[in-house]
Amino acid sequence: MGKRRYKHSEKKVGASPGSLIYVGQEIDHKTNIRRIEYNEANYTVETVKRLATCSKPVETSPLISWLDIDGIHEPAVVERIGQQYHLHPLLLEDVMNSQQKPKVEEYDGAYLFATMKMLHFNVKTQELESEHLSFVMGKNYLISFQEERKSDIFQPVLDRIQASAGKTRRNGPDYLLYALMDLVVDHYFVVLDNIGEKLEILENSIIEQVAGQQTLTRMYTLKRELTLMRKLVWPVREMINRMVLEESDLIKPATMPFLRDLYDHVVQVLDSIDSYRELATSLLDVYLSTLSNRMNSVMKTLTIFSAIFMPLTFIVGVYGMNFDNMPELHTRNGYFVVLGVMAVSTVLMVIYFRRRRWF
Amino acid sequence: MGKRRYKHSEKKVGASPGSLIYVGQEIDHKTNIRRIEYNEANYTVETVKRLATCSKPVETSPLISWLDIDGIHEPAVVERIGQQYHLHPLLLEDVMNSQQKPKVEEYDGAYLFATMKMLHFNVKTQELESEHLSFVMGKNYLISFQEERKSDIFQPVLDRIQASAGKTRRNGPDYLLYALMDLVVDHYFVVLDNIGEKLEILENSIIEQVAGQQTLTRMYTLKRELTLMRKLVWPVREMINRMVLEESDLIKPATMPFLRDLYDHVVQVLDSIDSYRELATSLLDVYLSTLSNRMNSVMKTLTIFSAIFMPLTFIVGVYGMNFDNMPELHTRNGYFVVLGVMAVSTVLMVIYFRRRRWF
Amino acid sequence: MGKRRYKHSEKKVGASPGSLIYVGQEIDHKTNIRRIEYNEANYTVETVKRLATCSKPVETSPLISWLDIDGIHEPAVVERIGQQYHLHPLLLEDVMNSQQKPKVEEYDGAYLFATMKMLHFNVKTQELESEHLSFVMGKNYLISFQEERKSDIFQPVLDRIQASAGKTRRNGPDYLLYALMDLVVDHYFVVLDNIGEKLEILENSIIEQVAGQQTLTRMYTLKRELTLMRKLVWPVREMINRMVLEESDLIKPATMPFLRDLYDHVVQVLDSIDSYRELATSLLDVYLSTLSNRMNSVMKTLTIFSAIFMPLTFIVGVYGMNFDNMPELHTRNGYFVVLGVMAVSTVLMVIYFRRRRWF
Amino acid sequence: MGKRRYKHSEKKVGASPGSLIYVGQEIDHKTNIRRIEYNEANYTVETVKRLATCSKPVETSPLISWLDIDGIHEPAVVERIGQQYHLHPLLLEDVMNSQQKPKVEEYDGAYLFATMKMLHFNVKTQELESEHLSFVMGKNYLISFQEERKSDIFQPVLDRIQASAGKTRRNGPDYLLYALMDLVVDHYFVVLDNIGEKLEILENSIIEQVAGQQTLTRMYTLKRELTLMRKLVWPVREMINRMVLEESDLIKPATMPFLRDLYDHVVQVLDSIDSYRELATSLLDVYLSTLSNRMNSVMKTLTIFSAIFMPLTFIVGVYGMNFDNMPELHTRNGYFVVLGVMAVSTVLMVIYFRRRRWF
Amino acid sequence: MGKRRYKHSEKKVGASPGSLIYVGQEIDHKTNIRRIEYNEANYTVETVKRLATCSKPVETSPLISWLDIDGIHEPAVVERIGQQYHLHPLLLEDVMNSQQKPKVEEYDGAYLFATMKMLHFNVKTQELESEHLSFVMGKNYLISFQEERKSDIFQPVLDRIQASAGKTRRNGPDYLLYALMDLVVDHYFVVLDNIGEKLEILENSIIEQVAGQQTLTRMYTLKRELTLMRKLVWPVREMINRMVLEESDLIKPATMPFLRDLYDHVVQVLDSIDSYRELATSLLDVYLSTLSNRMNSVMKTLTIFSAIFMPLTFIVGVYGMNFDNMPELHTRNGYFVVLGVMAVSTVLMVIYFRRRRWF
Repeated sequence: MGKRRYKHSEKKVGASPGSLIYVGQEIDHKTNIRRIEYNEANYTVETVKRLATCSKPVETSPLISWLDIDGIHEPAVVERIGQQYHLHPLLLEDVMNSQQKPKVEEYDGAYLFATMKMLHFNVKTQELESEHLSFVMGKNYLISFQEERKSDIFQPVLDRIQASAGKTRRNGPDYLLYALMDLVVDHYFVVLDNIGEKLEILENSIIEQVAGQQTLTRMYTLKRELTLMRKLVWPVREMINRMVLEESDLIKPATMPFLRDLYDHVVQVLDSIDSYRELATSLLDVYLSTLSNRMNSVMKTLTIFSAIFMPLTFIVGVYGMNFDNMPELHTRNGYFVVLGVMAVSTVLMVIYFRRRRWF
Repeated sequence: MGKRRYKHSEKKVGASPGSLIYVGQEIDHKTNIRRIEYNEANYTVETVKRLATCSKPVETSPLISWLDIDGIHEPAVVERIGQQYHLHPLLLEDVMNSQQKPKVEEYDGAYLFATMKMLHFNVKTQELESEHLSFVMGKNYLISFQEERKSDIFQPVLDRIQASAGKTRRNGPDYLLYALMDLVVDHYFVVLDNIGEKLEILENSIIEQVAGQQTLTRMYTLKRELTLMRKLVWPVREMINRMVLEESDLIKPATMPFLRDLYDHVVQVLDSIDSYRELATSLLDVYLSTLSNRMNSVMKTLTIFSAIFMPLTFIVGVYGMNFDNMPELHTRNGYFVVLGVMAVSTVLMVIYFRRRRWF
Repeated sequence: MGKRRYKHSEKKVGASPGSLIYVGQEIDHKTNIRRIEYNEANYTVETVKRLATCSKPVETSPLISWLDIDGIHEPAVVERIGQQYHLHPLLLEDVMNSQQKPKVEEYDGAYLFATMKMLHFNVKTQELESEHLSFVMGKNYLISFQEERKSDIFQPVLDRIQASAGKTRRNGPDYLLYALMDLVVDHYFVVLDNIGEKLEILENSIIEQVAGQQTLTRMYTLKRELTLMRKLVWPVREMINRMVLEESDLIKPATMPFLRDLYDHVVQVLDSIDSYRELATSLLDVYLSTLSNRMNSVMKTLTIFSAIFMPLTFIVGVYGMNFDNMPELHTRNGYFVVLGVMAVSTVLMVIYFRRRRWF
Repeated sequence: MGKRRYKHSEKKVGASPGSLIYVGQEIDHKTNIRRIEYNEANYTVETVKRLATCSKPVETSPLISWLDIDGIHEPAVVERIGQQYHLHPLLLEDVMNSQQKPKVEEYDGAYLFATMKMLHFNVKTQELESEHLSFVMGKNYLISFQEERKSDIFQPVLDRIQASAGKTRRNGPDYLLYALMDLVVDHYFVVLDNIGEKLEILENSIIEQVAGQQTLTRMYTLKRELTLMRKLVWPVREMINRMVLEESDLIKPATMPFLRDLYDHVVQVLDSIDSYRELATSLLDVYLSTLSNRMNSVMKTLTIFSAIFMPLTFIVGVYGMNFDNMPELHTRNGYFVVLGVMAVSTVLMVIYFRRRRWF
Repeated sequence: MGKRRYKHSEKKVGASPGSLIYVGQEIDHKTNIRRIEYNEANYTVETVKRLATCSKPVETSPLISWLDIDGIHEPAVVERIGQQYHLHPLLLEDVMNSQQKPKVEEYDGAYLFATMKMLHFNVKTQELESEHLSFVMGKNYLISFQEERKSDIFQPVLDRIQASAGKTRRNGPDYLLYALMDLVVDHYFVVLDNIGEKLEILENSIIEQVAGQQTLTRMYTLKRELTLMRKLVWPVREMINRMVLEESDLIKPATMPFLRDLYDHVVQVLDSIDSYRELATSLLDVYLSTLSNRMNSVMKTLTIFSAIFMPLTFIVGVYGMNFDNMPELHTRNGYFVVLGVMAVSTVLMVIYFRRRRWF
């Protein structure tokens, strides 16, 4: 698991560009495909059994076809779909490479390719888990590729399609694409809330001075995951910005306000990540200062003890010497005088340290 | 309260975009609405009881209509107003989402939507409190939404309208919008002054070396609130900049110098936030150095005590041994010679440490 | 004084934009006004007693009129001048607000408004003192507003006008404006030299390891003032840049090389501020390391003493025990053997610590 | 080896620009040249023995000619090739200067010059090793220069040419150039993986608190190599960007998607470098805090021992004094009372430190 | 010398712009002037004795005239040359101001003014020494101003002119200007190599843990000089960039590739400066951690000694008490039992600290 963390690419160096090699965690189930077809009036959902039936819908089709593919680890499947939809080999390579960073690209005005990450925060291990998503959008179809259907992330959109002839049903595949991306970005906020909660716990434990080595480790893993999250969300910002600016024929003007709204949300996510990272850094500084502060107080305790007892021990040592000729030893009150002197010197020491505000 | 601090969105993930769900602190009173209508000659202020009367004024109306809505937590109210003024559902969603960051947007040249935060600094808890404000401006009307009417923040502008036929009365809704935004930005300076005062207290306590753990915690919370404030004010800069650059028909040229002036003020606020954050960081460094300095002095005290008393204690220990054959013990002045030797060695130690400037 | 440092605005929140309220330190003398009129052939200097005589010169006047106003705290005076020269109310507000940041603005091609800060470095308190300056330049006149005539800062330019029919006399009000701004920027270099000198003293005291808590405090105040200076000079850069780029009819092409030169100077000032700040940060790091270094050496001293005398004290303690049956005590050379053992163990300790390079 | 690390240029200062002087590590073998000629139908590979045969192919040649030169240290060879292909002297200087940073340049639309670094991470020394590569691409030829054929880095592309009439064979020299550059960038990911693995080891040793001085040194060398790698990869980003934006006639539109893909990969490499550097910095902070934490615990141990035994030693010292008149010594249970008092005081001390959570 | 370091300008504040006042170190020799005239066929070098002979060459002259002036401290000389070549007074002011930062400016297409710094690294004092250079280039002439002819820096170019009718002789004054600037930039690499060498020494001494206070001071001065160097080289980048972009008639297209090459070199210098500064910062962090590490080990030594000997000393103290009734003292093996107990407790302590890996 740790191993995985800083792994970039298992793709064989020297493989021809556009080669379909799956890069990601091992997956053992088969690819599931379902097709949803809808317009304002009707909708159908079916599970696709044979790849041969997954063909590009004719341009004149009155229905919007959404092909939802769960599993990107079988080159044969991805390649076949690529052939049937006439997709560029580099695009297919990106679909299968779970290390691919988010981006959007338009291919000759014929279809638009977008890829981004679904994020979950594993509260137990304090680790960010990402799932590679890709979308291909044509005039009247949308293909979505998911790395692994963990929590059936697209279900809410499907529910809305099934529920009523609402906005999603009334609009084209561009709005569907937006709706799916919006879902993903909404999850970013959930991740932020999870991280924020963790950060708050750390903040409290540092301010209330009960933080130890473990707090430190947790702070570090939190910062690391924030760094990772930033790396995965940052390109999404540019990606949506390009969709807004590069007036593509595939995206209708009515969808623009929604994309702009989405853009704002992503910017907000990034702002929060930056604030969190800054806060984590500040917290570490506070923690370091707290340690120094505590060290100071420990050292003061030690010094006070030493400064009081070292002279005393010396004095009693003097009168423990065995010289024949030590006149003080034979006086009547010598012992009591020495006790008195020691008492006074102790009091003076205490006063001295109080004045210097050592305790 | 702590909980609230790092919370982003309670909006249900997967809700349809444009759904009206209130995101913010719970509020228990009802929405208050008042309508102010004015031109250079007349003005009226009335409390709106029935939502049905809140309709968009006709374009030919000679009066400017300001609808001031206090409360954004009732979806029914916001939706009704949205219908009567023909507002975009995404806009209404932003009005109700107190987590929405500041922005400005024009909808088809018909109306302009702006949202920003009113800020208060709670001097007691050292926390920044923000209030979500939204404005919708049309040809001859302005709608203002406030999260909660804490201190009746728009009163000064209303007072000016009532006082005389001044600039506000002579100008259109664009000037009114500017006047309200100016009021909000003026409050930013008040917040800065509050924070500056706190910072100064911390600065003094650090420089005069009376700072302790609590100073540290306060410094941290101050930095955290500055980070938060920056996050809330930074988009206001871009927002006003866009209002100046995107020559909208809704904003008259005569209002431009005022907006430019407002822009300058926001830039000044941001500059001050940055300086404050920098100063806070510098102060923390100074504090850390102070701690190190103090530790050094504590350690020196300890070392001086040890270096003086350890050898002395050893010497007296030697003559406390019970060997039968210890010639020195039986000499006449042995005791006094030893006392003398110890005195001299102490003096030498003191001189040595003085030379190394240890005290 | 400390209070002043982080104060932003005493302007009443909610006051109408353009209201003339003086923001700055209290001033007790009256406003002084003098008018200088000159062309290549003649010049006159007179003190203005009655405001009524301060009127905008006619466009056809062959003389350039420079109205130098010392004092911006009397709203009546500023307002009257504003009326007689037809100046925008926002401009007058900026003239009176000593917190206004530097900027330049052209009003309808009729006149140009520029405001910036004169800076002095108070070597005694290590604090930067700023004076608010504003300039209004028309076709054939210039008005200069000074917060307080401390050192009669414009005198050198006046001297040049009086001395001979040089460049200033041959050129228009745009060159005069440049000459005054150049004077202000020249003073920035003086401030830099003062700060540089202070920095050098600190650098030496840190490198020669005589730095203490006071050095730390001074370093901090220096950094704070550099941060402040940067905040006040940074906008001057943009301001002059705009004067160069926005080809205004009010600035003649012949004056451009001079403005570009001025721009270069401001950039140089900013570069130096940044270098100084960086150096101050590096110095602080060096100081912290020095402290750690010193602490290390203190601790080593302590440890060496402890490591040598603790075992010795233990040994002599052993032979100070009063057991009846301690055979060593009754041997003839026991005492001397013990002394010898202690000497050898001390030597070994010393060798050990020498080898580990502890002293 | 260390020496080499911060060496820039051995080129004689004052040499005429365009002089051919080899700058790099000493090489003892001779230059090897091979020529690959191919089109979709055929291909030939031959080793070039005589430089005279290396002439620029005629424009009408149906074959693409790839001249692969292994060795850039012989001025005579490089100059001769330069003459036969009519290359600019500055270009040849860059080919021979292994310190040259990556860049791309087009010479009069006749040929395109690109230079970049092949990177290897020497896992043993933790050092980055770079190899200087240059490419000259004309209408129907490509010349590649390698500093040293360490691992025959271009072999995979040659293999693909030989294997089948695939993409490389079907396309022109621009695709070949892309394929070679892609190979180099693929190696960057391998380097990243190596560094990531090292970083992970360091991370674990710090979190599990077994890190020592050596971890520190390794962390530093890792950061240094990351800084170096960034310096070598950063210009590659701009270089490919220019190839994409400056629509050169030498690069066919069909190759553009591949270059854009390559660009994305380089950006991803840079992002990862930045994350790694950030993580390394965070780790160092964690390590420092861990040290402070551990110091605190050491000091507490010391203080607890001192605080318990110093008073005890004092007490027993008191009753080791030899005064004639010490009444306690002659009581029956004095000894046991003292033992009891000491036991109680020890218990109290232990309770006290427990309460302050010192252990 | 230290004084000089942070000095900006001795120019009298308030002096008229364009006044010729020398700003720089005092110089005691006279200005030396030599004139080199050349074309592809011929060349002459002569020392100029009388300023009157330094006149601007006629436009039709077939020779290129290079006037090399060594000394910029005599206003009379500079002014006279300015008159004879019709140069702008601000230009002359910049020539004489050794604090002027690098820049390039074209005056009405008639001549081009460029100024930059020659840099030397004084290996002994670890200080950067800069020499102010200025160039004025016309259609067929070049004037070069040097602050002080330390090492006759332009000699290599002169040698090339004298050696053969090479590139320099075949090209115009623009190539000559490039050649001189290239020479200066080549020296930057030499300075970098010097600094790199110093940095490497510091790196080694820190990694091998033999660094002390002096290493710290050297690190600081190195960082300071790097900051200074960056300040002096950074504007050179923009300056050459402007020469490349602003297609001046004075620079022939054939010279452009050379200028672009020079630009690349300057960027490389800046990249290296930044890497060095980063490395220096990282090194300082490593050093701080090393100090903490060492402190930890010192403290452990101390604590181990204390933890072992404090209890022992206490035990022997117990049996040194003089109570009448201490039964143990009179047992036969009491002494040996105590010795045994002490031996065992010591062994246990040692095991305990070993387990906690303290040594």
